[in-house]
Amino acid sequence: MSLLSELRATLGDAAVLSEGDLSAWEVDWRKRAQGRALAVIRPASTGEVAAVVRACSTHGVSIVPQGGNTGLVGGSIPDSSGTQVVLSLARMNRVRAIDAANLTMTVDAGCVLQAAQEAAAAAGLLFPLSLAAEGSCTIGGNLGTNAGGTQVLRYGNARELCLGLEVVTAAGEIWDGLSGLRKDNTGYDLRNVLIGSEGTLGVITAATLKLYPQPAAVTTALAAVATLDAAVGLLQLAQARLGAGLTGFEVMNAFSLDLVRRHFAALRQPLGRAPWTVLLEQSDTESAEHAGVLFEGLLQTALERELIGDAAVASSLEQSKAMWHLRESIPLAQSLEGANIKHDIALPISAVAGFVESTDAALQRAFPGIRLVDFGHLGDGNLHYNVQAPDGVDALDFVAEHEARVNDLVYDAVGACGGSFSAEHGIGRIKREQLARRESPVALQMMRAIKSALDPANLLNPGRVL
Amino acid sequence: MSLLSELRATLGDAAVLSEGDLSAWEVDWRKRAQGRALAVIRPASTGEVAAVVRACSTHGVSIVPQGGNTGLVGGSIPDSSGTQVVLSLARMNRVRAIDAANLTMTVDAGCVLQAAQEAAAAAGLLFPLSLAAEGSCTIGGNLGTNAGGTQVLRYGNARELCLGLEVVTAAGEIWDGLSGLRKDNTGYDLRNVLIGSEGTLGVITAATLKLYPQPAAVTTALAAVATLDAAVGLLQLAQARLGAGLTGFEVMNAFSLDLVRRHFAALRQPLGRAPWTVLLEQSDTESAEHAGVLFEGLLQTALERELIGDAAVASSLEQSKAMWHLRESIPLAQSLEGANIKHDIALPISAVAGFVESTDAALQRAFPGIRLVDFGHLGDGNLHYNVQAPDGVDALDFVAEHEARVNDLVYDAVGACGGSFSAEHGIGRIKREQLARRESPVALQMMRAIKSALDPANLLNPGRVL
Repeated sequence: MSLLSELRATLGDAAVLSEGDLSAWEVDWRKRAQGRALAVIRPASTGEVAAVVRACSTHGVSIVPQGGNTGLVGGSIPDSSGTQVVLSLARMNRVRAIDAANLTMTVDAGCVLQAAQEAAAAAGLLFPLSLAAEGSCTIGGNLGTNAGGTQVLRYGNARELCLGLEVVTAAGEIWDGLSGLRKDNTGYDLRNVLIGSEGTLGVITAATLKLYPQPAAVTTALAAVATLDAAVGLLQLAQARLGAGLTGFEVMNAFSLDLVRRHFAALRQPLGRAPWTVLLEQSDTESAEHAGVLFEGLLQTALERELIGDAAVASSLEQSKAMWHLRESIPLAQSLEGANIKHDIALPISAVAGFVESTDAALQRAFPGIRLVDFGHLGDGNLHYNVQAPDGVDALDFVAEHEARVNDLVYDAVGACGGSFSAEHGIGRIKREQLARRESPVALQMMRAIKSALDPANLLNPGRVL
Repeated sequence: MSLLSELRATLGDAAVLSEGDLSAWEVDWRKRAQGRALAVIRPASTGEVAAVVRACSTHGVSIVPQGGNTGLVGGSIPDSSGTQVVLSLARMNRVRAIDAANLTMTVDAGCVLQAAQEAAAAAGLLFPLSLAAEGSCTIGGNLGTNAGGTQVLRYGNARELCLGLEVVTAAGEIWDGLSGLRKDNTGYDLRNVLIGSEGTLGVITAATLKLYPQPAAVTTALAAVATLDAAVGLLQLAQARLGAGLTGFEVMNAFSLDLVRRHFAALRQPLGRAPWTVLLEQSDTESAEHAGVLFEGLLQTALERELIGDAAVASSLEQSKAMWHLRESIPLAQSLEGANIKHDIALPISAVAGFVESTDAALQRAFPGIRLVDFGHLGDGNLHYNVQAPDGVDALDFVAEHEARVNDLVYDAVGACGGSFSAEHGIGRIKREQLARRESPVALQMMRAIKSALDPANLLNPGRVL
């Protein structure tokens, strides 16, 4: 029997799509790449996922696991051969259980991040993973790519928010590693081997996640700073004063907010134009009043120490949302401005200011007139350090002609600072060559050994990561 | 040339010990096991560690990495064959660097935990890993076993406190994965593969660790509770009220404090005898006054809700230390009472009370008169659930006769609750059979595949973990 007939017999016809427009599963989020799938398989249970993997293994057909297909590195779409199946987890989208006393929640891999956040909130609790694609991305994808987002400073990446996994192995066996335990030293850390492996070592089918008490109040502020050094000084002050209460610390350069001003003129910008603008978020376990007093005191001290110029504290949930909306409008404003070259980099926080100063200058020397869109999660050292063509230059032409050289310059500088060329978006297909070039040969050898050990036939998302 | 001659030529005579009394490296911390080493090798640098591994590999001699030799599961001493070398990291004990702006510290693997804590404190910062053996254990051992301790509730295990590793592989190559990055998704998570692998996949030679701002004040309290259910209720209330300010939540049953009363009569116990006593620790980023107000409010609410009976808040650093000293005296009081059967278990917090009630009862039915020393880190679900012989029964005889049956009963009950039979002490040699029996076959198969992939000749700590 052919693979597809076999899968139709096992899963039912509706779960095996091989005709018609499959572009929703074949085209990546940024619409930069299109693959072609032999079929899209939509299992409804862990047992069905295991059956799909076993059948594909028997037929020697490789598998591309897919969640919300919001990845930015081409890791979740098939290649162009038409021989790979997309294994969509989207139908497995239940919240399986919430254990309030244990502060945990167990969800299917296909559960949309926002649905997981809402389920936690309905139980009076907080699931703190938060990122731009949260309305579409899934927990399985978040864990497969070890997603980051805006709350990493306080709560860590997706990795740190996961206590246990259920996984279908390359052999089509089910590992039930769902666990609500905070301490568990029974052998090697398979959970973390799977997290961030982008579907190349196993298929994540469910996860047990950490929850937190809801804060009593969340407050947001914007502060104008003259230099990145001052922004880092403000971060240190905020960490000392607020401790774990500091749940967000974003930075935006002047040009990134200029783009928002240009393309979203209706959005009010509370502060005047400044070299850098910081967005701070504080989550308070006591009360809005307590939060206000702490926040005002922090900003007052920062003013006195000349770390910041002007500042604005949100006085309502609306204002707070509007501040975040400014920050979150940058990627779209960038797109409206035209094609650009994106970098998702991480640096030691102590190296950020020096990196930006010297790399901005080197880029200007090499590509006079280019415009830098620098913004990101300064609190955890993660910058989206993006390059827009000079004014008046065709953006697509610029990207086509210069992307490789710009990447080399930026990634060389990142490497020299002990940084990472892939902070929170993963490797996928797009950064695979960078990994092969830039990762230490010893580390690559260990990674390849692990891949061969867990997926000897190379059927799980081949050609991604390694 | 023989291995030892070769090592003497490379490292110098003083670094290769093969004569005289080697018991400091051959006997485990609890003095329950003694091995015999071919030699104890004491390299002074990462390059020397790599040379030792290469030489041992050439000669087919297996290696037992050792830090402070304070492990409780026999993972750091050689077997009795006299053919294994102990690779002691003790001479590599430097703090390599502290990066205050990045809140990180890089230390050699042989750096003693307390020295790391003190170096952080000297820079005005906090390294929060804290456990009983901190004066002797080393960072390499802490990471090799993914140590836990008293602050896991807030800061996580050793795993969560580590951002990067330097490792010598089984092939004697050096992987420089030292990183001060909070976000880094460049390939598989080798760091977490190595952490907790107990020296069986590579030799950790250095680590970059997370630091935190020092809290402005730390306050401790004791509270008497009638049931474990009430203790869990108090935990939930404290988590909601104090958030990340809650840095310790220990529980002790009446008998464990009775033992302290009996064997350390000079230690004042601020509260009367209660079925359970909780120790709470709060770390405050604002001030001692603020901490006091919050803590009093919490305990007042807990009293009103009848979660607690009596309570005592430490009014000085001295009193605070005395409260912790009570808790930390339990293991020694137990030893003075006589041999006993120890369990280092973790449970979902929601399952702790039910587990203890039914398992206490089952043990009493099976072994009438036995005395249960229940204490541990309730905040993260980790109990040291220990069994002492009935009064008047010879303790050594009891342990010799019943240990296996007691373990089976306890671990079966732990498994039925979704718990772990190894929370923070690792597997080593002592729990290896339990792992083989109790871990899922699918997980064991993945673990064995990883071991074969990274240490194909099985020269790194063979016979431990797997």
